Amino acid sequence: MTPYAIGLDFGTESARLVALDLANGAEVLVREHRYRHGVMDRCLPDGTPLAAEWALQHPDDYLDAAAALLAEAATVLNPAQVIGIGIDHTASSVLMTDAAGQPLCRHAPFVHEPHAYVKLWKHHAPVREARELQAGLGRWLWHTGGTSSAEWLHAKALETLRGAPAVFDAAARVIEAGDWLVWQLTGDEVRSACQAGFKAHYRGSYPDDATLDAIEPGFAALNQRLAPPHPVGGAAGGLSAAWSQRCGLRRGTPVAVALIDAHAAVPGLGVAGPGVLAIAMGTSTCHVVLAAEERLATGVAGVVQDGVFPGLVAYETGQAAAGDMLAWWARLLAPSGADFAALEREAAALPARPTGLLALDWWNGARTPLMNPALSGVLCGLRIETSRAEVYRALLEATAFGNRQVLDLLEGAVVPIHEIRVSGGLTRSTLLMQLLADVLGREVLVSATPNGSARGAALVGALAAGVDEGLNLCARLAPADIRRVAPDPERQRAFDERYARYRELQQWFAATSNDLLPALRQH
Amino acid sequence: MTPYAIGLDFGTESARLVALDLANGAEVLVREHRYRHGVMDRCLPDGTPLAAEWALQHPDDYLDAAAALLAEAATVLNPAQVIGIGIDHTASSVLMTDAAGQPLCRHAPFVHEPHAYVKLWKHHAPVREARELQAGLGRWLWHTGGTSSAEWLHAKALETLRGAPAVFDAAARVIEAGDWLVWQLTGDEVRSACQAGFKAHYRGSYPDDATLDAIEPGFAALNQRLAPPHPVGGAAGGLSAAWSQRCGLRRGTPVAVALIDAHAAVPGLGVAGPGVLAIAMGTSTCHVVLAAEERLATGVAGVVQDGVFPGLVAYETGQAAAGDMLAWWARLLAPSGADFAALEREAAALPARPTGLLALDWWNGARTPLMNPALSGVLCGLRIETSRAEVYRALLEATAFGNRQVLDLLEGAVVPIHEIRVSGGLTRSTLLMQLLADVLGREVLVSATPNGSARGAALVGALAAGVDEGLNLCARLAPADIRRVAPDPERQRAFDERYARYRELQQWFAATSNDLLPALRQH
Repeated sequence: MTPYAIGLDFGTESARLVALDLANGAEVLVREHRYRHGVMDRCLPDGTPLAAEWALQHPDDYLDAAAALLAEAATVLNPAQVIGIGIDHTASSVLMTDAAGQPLCRHAPFVHEPHAYVKLWKHHAPVREARELQAGLGRWLWHTGGTSSAEWLHAKALETLRGAPAVFDAAARVIEAGDWLVWQLTGDEVRSACQAGFKAHYRGSYPDDATLDAIEPGFAALNQRLAPPHPVGGAAGGLSAAWSQRCGLRRGTPVAVALIDAHAAVPGLGVAGPGVLAIAMGTSTCHVVLAAEERLATGVAGVVQDGVFPGLVAYETGQAAAGDMLAWWARLLAPSGADFAALEREAAALPARPTGLLALDWWNGARTPLMNPALSGVLCGLRIETSRAEVYRALLEATAFGNRQVLDLLEGAVVPIHEIRVSGGLTRSTLLMQLLADVLGREVLVSATPNGSARGAALVGALAAGVDEGLNLCARLAPADIRRVAPDPERQRAFDERYARYRELQQWFAATSNDLLPALRQH
Repeated sequence: MTPYAIGLDFGTESARLVALDLANGAEVLVREHRYRHGVMDRCLPDGTPLAAEWALQHPDDYLDAAAALLAEAATVLNPAQVIGIGIDHTASSVLMTDAAGQPLCRHAPFVHEPHAYVKLWKHHAPVREARELQAGLGRWLWHTGGTSSAEWLHAKALETLRGAPAVFDAAARVIEAGDWLVWQLTGDEVRSACQAGFKAHYRGSYPDDATLDAIEPGFAALNQRLAPPHPVGGAAGGLSAAWSQRCGLRRGTPVAVALIDAHAAVPGLGVAGPGVLAIAMGTSTCHVVLAAEERLATGVAGVVQDGVFPGLVAYETGQAAAGDMLAWWARLLAPSGADFAALEREAAALPARPTGLLALDWWNGARTPLMNPALSGVLCGLRIETSRAEVYRALLEATAFGNRQVLDLLEGAVVPIHEIRVSGGLTRSTLLMQLLADVLGREVLVSATPNGSARGAALVGALAAGVDEGLNLCARLAPADIRRVAPDPERQRAFDERYARYRELQQWFAATSNDLLPALRQH
């Protein structure tokens, strides 16, 4: 009887279940469940309006999705074959609960209170709080490239303390939605090192009381509300009696410590150890690489012990814009319906050498290595003859150059990279994948599966169940669709030259003495 | 009996006649005549194919247009009232003729020979020749900002010497089409100081034999084919008997020395003396200002004694892209039909302060003050939120910043500017006119008349007839539609700051040590 593991991947609009055959990696079941309330960015279900930059979710949506998906798995599969469950979730998507794990939005006094709901990762309102944290967190920034973010837990919690102190006071727990789901399924509150390290400044400890109180008196109370983290790859507990009854899977089925969705794609892509760079290319890009040792480097956005695999240090870097920069261009050209296919076709028909344009891909500010959100995009070389396809292609090239920079940084400061694996929506661009290989000067292994994160969660569920292969399991069960894209030596040389230009351009615009782009942003 | 003067304005696609009432400046007759062959950029009338970058015209088209337009004037008006005729023409639009003024394309051996036709101003094929001339013309570049151009006479003639030596050998005259028309109408070959100075490196003399022969053996023979120039504002002769018979105007009607179309707009706009900056804003922009003395300044593209008015030095500067940069953007957005009106409306609805973008307007290379065709456009400050209207507006702002730079240069190095007058197709953009006033920090006088050059030609025709007011005539008969646009002090301050950023950005990209943009161009 082949063992199966289930991965539950909680995305922004829906949750996805994949059941993986642990003998051969086949996806024996794939199901999706859209959240009833989706992203609440205009009002609460009762009509309470939300301010700009707010983005909330309803925690019951996650439970409904989990129940429906697991119940379907229990129907289609033999529950006895399901040996483990893993969960990944967007992050930092944070909520406050009482001591029993009840979200405060279910408490009568807080039903109309926006701060009592899940603040989704892209809830960007606490910008001021993020700035204050960045100024005040001191050594807790060493592992996050010197930055804090409005997307992270501390900014969101500080915003609640200020905006709805009654909610903050009533909270027994401040918790990531992924960890909260593990708690709901198992009855045990087991927090993940992945979310804590990448989104809550955890490093041996959370930022200490004195530091928090110096930022805002009373903020130190947050620490009593944060549970200590556990390594990814372990079991958080077993499926509770209540959930077993609700969905039909066996009581006690091991449930893994949760992890962030982007990071779940790392095992999901077949990465089983140090030195393999996993690139998730979608709206933005996220790079994760594992190493045996901890090395701090400027521009690395996160360094987390046990953050993706037990016993290894996970490093995260990223570009703040990628797919959404391409979408921006397509939208400007055709407001009523972006035609990526036409752009892709036209750009692929251009001569196979660097365009006459050069772009700095800072449409959402610069992440690795500059970590400067005040920067903005630049496009050079524009001529009367410049076509829309050339602009599109220049944006693809800039995305590839940004990746090259990450590769160089990680190799120079962290760990030799012996393999590169790419996943995410942008893998659909054959042109981008070829440009990436040419610009990196490396073979890249591309998987277009939309189930990378869910597969990773399933593998972590298998590890939680004690599968004795350890991490080799991930390599053995890599997605079947992986294709290898090799660089072309001639184009590689041409792009080497162009990359030097990209660096030169970046150097000028990003010099600390040059405040041109930040000044434009404040227009 | 009110005297009338006729202006004939030979543009790229058509010729236009304006008859001006010299009592009140009214346009008593306005007519247009399209050229039968238009711009020949694919083949000759007989099907002989043309290479890329070629742009020819048929000289008979000019004569047909002149005959039709003048005949209509003789019918509508009383010929006795027409006291003078002025002619302006695109330049350098150059042809080769025999000693009698017959274009060589009418000679049987050369009917199929492209070099025997008029090489239109935008015939851009002799790029290599222009480079060689720029390297070899020495002191004849002092008055042209250190440059020569593929658009100018010498490059086109050198191209003929090399490409069709039989044509070059058979030519008795190498002449501007405007001057050739004067010759046809009067029987006298009277060359204009305007064309000679701005388009044929004339400065006291044409480039001398030794200099030309050093560039290409035999090229000195050009000098025997070039007539000496005469000041603009004088009479070239009287309408010949043949032309009088052909069109019905009186024999002997004074015909003025020709001038370039862009320069004819200077008197046409009401400029009557030194220190008034005339800006023609169309596909590109062209600035002309008059001064009593000759002063050489880096970045001034032409300095010509008697080039627009007798006794005054005419200075020319320009931006290589303006309207065509806006058209580029509109075309990218809507390939099948650019919607300027929508862009203009959206851009005008943006907050009345500088955008969050900054552009360098080098879509066709940089003219004043950098005189570097190898540069290309730059756009900074791009964000996911950036709209198509913001990009459009940034291009308008860049056009205004380029004008500010020209104003500063001319004021600093040539002559104090006490008034600014603007004409051309871009005057239709109310937004651009306001931005121009705000960025220059000056009132600008705007005339949207499409007849500025033709009016100027008519005024020059009146001067040729000896109207005794002299140049005051031009001021008195300025177009009736002139409106005054005043700067807003608050926006002016905001644009002062932004202009400093423009200069800073330009400084980096245009530094001689920075070959980024030229290198991109050679991709």
